[in-house]
Amino acid sequence: MGGARDIANRLRAQLDPTWRTAGLSPLNRLLVGAIIASVTLTVIETEPAIASGRETLFRAAELAFGVLFAAEYGARLWLAGHGEGSRWAHRLSWMMSPAALLDLAALLPMLMLPGTPAAMLRILRLMRIVRLARLGRFSAAWTLIADAVEARRYELGLSFGAALIAMLLAASLLYVVESPSQPEAFGSIPRALWWAVMTLTTVGYGDVYPQSSVGKALTGVFAVVGIGLIAAPTGILAAAFSDAWRARTSRSGSEEFRETN
Amino acid sequence: MGGARDIANRLRAQLDPTWRTAGLSPLNRLLVGAIIASVTLTVIETEPAIASGRETLFRAAELAFGVLFAAEYGARLWLAGHGEGSRWAHRLSWMMSPAALLDLAALLPMLMLPGTPAAMLRILRLMRIVRLARLGRFSAAWTLIADAVEARRYELGLSFGAALIAMLLAASLLYVVESPSQPEAFGSIPRALWWAVMTLTTVGYGDVYPQSSVGKALTGVFAVVGIGLIAAPTGILAAAFSDAWRARTSRSGSEEFRETN
Amino acid sequence: MGGARDIANRLRAQLDPTWRTAGLSPLNRLLVGAIIASVTLTVIETEPAIASGRETLFRAAELAFGVLFAAEYGARLWLAGHGEGSRWAHRLSWMMSPAALLDLAALLPMLMLPGTPAAMLRILRLMRIVRLARLGRFSAAWTLIADAVEARRYELGLSFGAALIAMLLAASLLYVVESPSQPEAFGSIPRALWWAVMTLTTVGYGDVYPQSSVGKALTGVFAVVGIGLIAAPTGILAAAFSDAWRARTSRSGSEEFRETN
Amino acid sequence: MGGARDIANRLRAQLDPTWRTAGLSPLNRLLVGAIIASVTLTVIETEPAIASGRETLFRAAELAFGVLFAAEYGARLWLAGHGEGSRWAHRLSWMMSPAALLDLAALLPMLMLPGTPAAMLRILRLMRIVRLARLGRFSAAWTLIADAVEARRYELGLSFGAALIAMLLAASLLYVVESPSQPEAFGSIPRALWWAVMTLTTVGYGDVYPQSSVGKALTGVFAVVGIGLIAAPTGILAAAFSDAWRARTSRSGSEEFRETN
Repeated sequence: MGGARDIANRLRAQLDPTWRTAGLSPLNRLLVGAIIASVTLTVIETEPAIASGRETLFRAAELAFGVLFAAEYGARLWLAGHGEGSRWAHRLSWMMSPAALLDLAALLPMLMLPGTPAAMLRILRLMRIVRLARLGRFSAAWTLIADAVEARRYELGLSFGAALIAMLLAASLLYVVESPSQPEAFGSIPRALWWAVMTLTTVGYGDVYPQSSVGKALTGVFAVVGIGLIAAPTGILAAAFSDAWRARTSRSGSEEFRETN
Repeated sequence: MGGARDIANRLRAQLDPTWRTAGLSPLNRLLVGAIIASVTLTVIETEPAIASGRETLFRAAELAFGVLFAAEYGARLWLAGHGEGSRWAHRLSWMMSPAALLDLAALLPMLMLPGTPAAMLRILRLMRIVRLARLGRFSAAWTLIADAVEARRYELGLSFGAALIAMLLAASLLYVVESPSQPEAFGSIPRALWWAVMTLTTVGYGDVYPQSSVGKALTGVFAVVGIGLIAAPTGILAAAFSDAWRARTSRSGSEEFRETN
Repeated sequence: MGGARDIANRLRAQLDPTWRTAGLSPLNRLLVGAIIASVTLTVIETEPAIASGRETLFRAAELAFGVLFAAEYGARLWLAGHGEGSRWAHRLSWMMSPAALLDLAALLPMLMLPGTPAAMLRILRLMRIVRLARLGRFSAAWTLIADAVEARRYELGLSFGAALIAMLLAASLLYVVESPSQPEAFGSIPRALWWAVMTLTTVGYGDVYPQSSVGKALTGVFAVVGIGLIAAPTGILAAAFSDAWRARTSRSGSEEFRETN
Repeated sequence: MGGARDIANRLRAQLDPTWRTAGLSPLNRLLVGAIIASVTLTVIETEPAIASGRETLFRAAELAFGVLFAAEYGARLWLAGHGEGSRWAHRLSWMMSPAALLDLAALLPMLMLPGTPAAMLRILRLMRIVRLARLGRFSAAWTLIADAVEARRYELGLSFGAALIAMLLAASLLYVVESPSQPEAFGSIPRALWWAVMTLTTVGYGDVYPQSSVGKALTGVFAVVGIGLIAAPTGILAAAFSDAWRARTSRSGSEEFRETN
């Protein structure tokens, strides 16, 4: 049993996202490589120019990655059972964590590999890449960004709400002005919303745009408003990050402390 | 009369946008749902693919929402009359508040429902969504953003004024350079302004753009200037939000106070 | 002579851009209105749909504005001569100031009104609008923004220089990759620069874009780099404005002082 | 030998990027002019409308610039040998510095001038422009920006990683939704990535876009998400610059100190 505990401890150290305060453990390096390779594979196998004639190769590689990630999932599940109290209560609570659910979801496509139209399942597999965001030094950065966004969630929500209202107003006005001359593009508010979102986010595909003078003048006004709608969340985030870093610095002692680290 | 006052107090508590410092009262939750449903309805009923054949259904739902919001308006009007001095003076002053005027405007389409070409009135009804911005926790966020914008209104006005001048200059120059070869798109300064606004806001539909080398070189310069025109208001807002939060924090005591809340 | 001095003082007070610390003097209000009207006139008279048949009307209005602004110029020139030392030395030094040169340039088109192809002169007349930026409360905002930009001019210059280098690199690479298949759009580095500027500023007209896989992959990378090129000057300006306001606040005494004003 | 040391010292002063704390030495001014002229030449010689018939002229100018920059490289190499220890160890270590490698790379095209298809080598020559970023006052600005980016590299990396994940998710979803109706544009995830990158960076060429209602609704959501993806790095950079300047100011003594400089 001491041997099992010893293995458990060494495995836990290897699977720990942070390894000796900074770098990644050898096992985590391998897993990072496997995640990147597996995601790249999933992306390029959809391109017939690359995949056709190599289906067997891609299936085999997918299966290999599936086995690797399943083994990792099993190891983590086993480790989750160590600690006080019921083993399976610990394991179940680990399985219900968002990270573990994502891992499990990414394993699903492997089970039903033969024959299923795997389009949507492919997306689940791709979401494995999200795990990279919490590894090593990125973990602290992630926490800081998440904290800053969390602290200003009402201001950010409000600025996105304002964007939504502006889009709705723009779509309604252009629907009134342009729907007689362009019924296909502006014949209803939902249709005009497509134009409104593409204009206020400054994407501007140019597939639909107003033809009348009034419509063009309104579009000009809304395009300028669109700058404000982009400026507001950016400004809120800038101020939030600035505050979050200052709060962290003052908590960890002094400015000099941070400088020397 | 004590019963009426009791009802008034309970109704006022239910209609209060902030409920026990944080959440929304059950009645306000209902109203939020009704506002979202009513706005969604107004948007989708303009789309023939959805609405045709279901006109009666949409009319009935609109009428129901109209009655609900009219009852709310009546309740608020009745409550506004409680207090010292003349009841109707209080009520009239409430009716003249921007929020109450917006509510009244949103009720207008219901009155003239049968037969009117309700295109513009529809927009009034949609503006009901603005009310969501002042409910619950969003209320404090709204105040903070409004204060920050208010404090820097001259700087923001100036940066939008600079954008206007740049657009005018771009339109004038391109009108001179491109009007001989593209009279339709650049044949006058107002026409060239359409191109200038779409370029400097980086929307870039691509329906009109210069063909000559001189015009393209000028456009390149103005596109880079456009980045500055977006950067300036964003930077002003970021600094304004940062200042507004710091001012609020220092007013409410100490950094620690804010952290624990 | 006392009468002349009295008139001079009253005229100087009327022409002063700031009037009793905040608002605008009646004469300046008139001039603001005249500038806006004159600029609007210059813009719309180029549109044949509006101007044709009304040429005489537009000429008369232009002449009237020209006389008004010439009178203002004369009054300011006369006032500039008051003070110690040579009158004309004062006046000449005033005439050489950027604001006075701009005013004089805006008067030029009037002199050669009959017959000249006034396209470029029209732009001079439009630049009169720049004067609005220095009136009343905008004057302080202008100074603050100009100071912040001035303090960070090397950082801003560097970030625009980095944008230029990125555009040059993008144009060179796409010229190599796309010039065989699209000689018209990518046949030389200057031609590819048109595409590069439009892509990295995120304008994206869509008139030219790469067709090859390598070109599309490179474009994707440069589009993401383009975000950084927009983010950098925005971030620099945000930090600069934040610092400039804090410096001004600490100079004027204390945080509380600003709050109460 | 004293004469050689004297020449070395004067040459070193002339080649020093900062000259008497601020401006540029006469020799550096000449080199700046030569770099700008040489880059301009390399750009315009690719345009047949300018270069055809003037090939000999362009070759001669290129050769002259090549000789000048080779002489500068030689001078710097010679100067690098002054100091304690082995001369050639110093020189080799200088040759291995990124700046020296870039200079050497920019000289390569000259060696193989006759006959090589110089497309890629031309890009090396263009990269000479990067050197301008480290001259004179720009040097301090460069250090500050580089420090700020370095200090927040994990947060910036994370926000670009989030952008990548969003692009991957958008491409996967649109591949599922649009691939049946638009196999050319959305027939594989790599193809859909072209659309996703162009949409989330708000470039928006408009060459491909979804046709189905579901695809358009998803695009609208991702376009709004795209604003957040631009806002995040901008906010991080803004906060990083603000912190970097404050750290520098507090290190150099006091706010007043900076103001007077």
